[in-house]
Amino acid sequence: MKVKPECFVCFVSQAIRATEIISKKDDDAIRALKNVAKVLSETEYNVAPPLISEFVYGSITKTLDHDDPYSEIKKKYNKIALNYVDDLKRYIEDSDDKLQAAINISVAGNIIDFGSQIEKFNIKETLNKAIIEGFLVNDIEDFKLKITKAKTLLFLADNAGEIVFDKLLLQTIKNLYPNLNIYIALRGKPIINDVTKNDIEGLGLEEIGTLIESTKPTPGFWPDYCDNLCKKIYKKADVIISKGQGNFETLSEFDDDRVFFLFIIKCSVVEKYLNKPKYSHIFAKKSSLC
Amino acid sequence: MKVKPECFVCFVSQAIRATEIISKKDDDAIRALKNVAKVLSETEYNVAPPLISEFVYGSITKTLDHDDPYSEIKKKYNKIALNYVDDLKRYIEDSDDKLQAAINISVAGNIIDFGSQIEKFNIKETLNKAIIEGFLVNDIEDFKLKITKAKTLLFLADNAGEIVFDKLLLQTIKNLYPNLNIYIALRGKPIINDVTKNDIEGLGLEEIGTLIESTKPTPGFWPDYCDNLCKKIYKKADVIISKGQGNFETLSEFDDDRVFFLFIIKCSVVEKYLNKPKYSHIFAKKSSLC
Repeated sequence: MKVKPECFVCFVSQAIRATEIISKKDDDAIRALKNVAKVLSETEYNVAPPLISEFVYGSITKTLDHDDPYSEIKKKYNKIALNYVDDLKRYIEDSDDKLQAAINISVAGNIIDFGSQIEKFNIKETLNKAIIEGFLVNDIEDFKLKITKAKTLLFLADNAGEIVFDKLLLQTIKNLYPNLNIYIALRGKPIINDVTKNDIEGLGLEEIGTLIESTKPTPGFWPDYCDNLCKKIYKKADVIISKGQGNFETLSEFDDDRVFFLFIIKCSVVEKYLNKPKYSHIFAKKSSLC
Repeated sequence: MKVKPECFVCFVSQAIRATEIISKKDDDAIRALKNVAKVLSETEYNVAPPLISEFVYGSITKTLDHDDPYSEIKKKYNKIALNYVDDLKRYIEDSDDKLQAAINISVAGNIIDFGSQIEKFNIKETLNKAIIEGFLVNDIEDFKLKITKAKTLLFLADNAGEIVFDKLLLQTIKNLYPNLNIYIALRGKPIINDVTKNDIEGLGLEEIGTLIESTKPTPGFWPDYCDNLCKKIYKKADVIISKGQGNFETLSEFDDDRVFFLFIIKCSVVEKYLNKPKYSHIFAKKSSLC
């Protein structure tokens, strides 16, 4: 999907949130926002929104000389998510369909997002909704068919905090399909609260799969922005779980039924693009969605 | 009050709303928004927010070659407001304190605003709130003292639609203080849904006071942007009613107890500046507010 006019509000809101974390001084924020405005005036928009966010965020971190404004917030939300883990593990273990249960948990984690236009989020409420209401679109049967035959699964990670819940899904998949090669793609450099290698210390993700990175700080996976290893794995993967709205925004540019999008619709642009209500939970291929 | 970082979101939202009215084509909107971004990258921000809106709006109308995007909306809201007039006249006539009643009506009209970050508004609910709950800050006693002794009242108008309710206030003032010279200042050129001479046809405002205009399309009255007549009247006026949030944003730059601000707090920046909750109704001098 391409940038829409409403995305400009989101770019500026993202910029304001990031500047607020780095500095409480209005002068700093306005200096950064003027530079963001310059970037926005010079950019070409026939692309997916996350490819613009890279320039917006890059301009702020350059102006205010701070590489990773969300570093503390990312740590905080990893800790918050870890508090839920014991209960959630039990929920998955007690479920008849463990894969579906783990997918329910993973989607709820997608509410932890400082990029989309969401003002406040409630993890507990979102977990309850995911468990009770389930998904508006759910391609789990096709996913099971594909993963049973698959040799390689690529998981495109999204945000810190959320990754703790994703680990429960990946662990469940590893238990159910022990011969599967699992790859976990993280962001190559910090952008918003997206998860990088720096943000997963102590979470044990490396015990589940091989960690790879995209090479550009874009809050949506874009194949051309990867190094050769990452490109190769993306190309050869039999099944791909694309986690989060940002990865949907970029990868919806391709028709690829290997890709299962797992996310919550969190902004009006995606809501309109899919013609599905905000806060719907989605686990689906593009061909089932639009 | 000066521009705050959050105002950037409002500038962009205003720009999107105006472009949407002129054209439904994303290409047009993005072209206009890129130009707005250029303007925002080149502007100095040590001023009140409405002085920036002039450039934002000016850029859009220039890019999309349309002088007055809100012209039809302004007509529509004049008509809508006129439907309330008979009932509101009766309410004022039946009130013991006719001036207070008319001020209640006038403030409710301030909800008709396409500039501030308000998404939806409900005129009837706002009228009920104004009548039942009254004002968070109310300087009516001082206003009565001043207007009793005054020779000249200047009313700084705000938006179309709203002006219909303001007329009821001005008519009430004229009835109570028949010797008062009343001047009504309109915007000199179109900006957002602010009221210009073009928008008051058939409303009979000229029967109540002398119409004057500011010379720049700024959604907040700024003395330096007026012609000599307007400047002279502003200087000599004994009492000034400054209607609407935009006029508060600009005139709060001055300490002037002739000025009574009559408005609803409608955005988070004004909310924080005054440390008073959004949607509070205000009728007060600056010295009573901040």
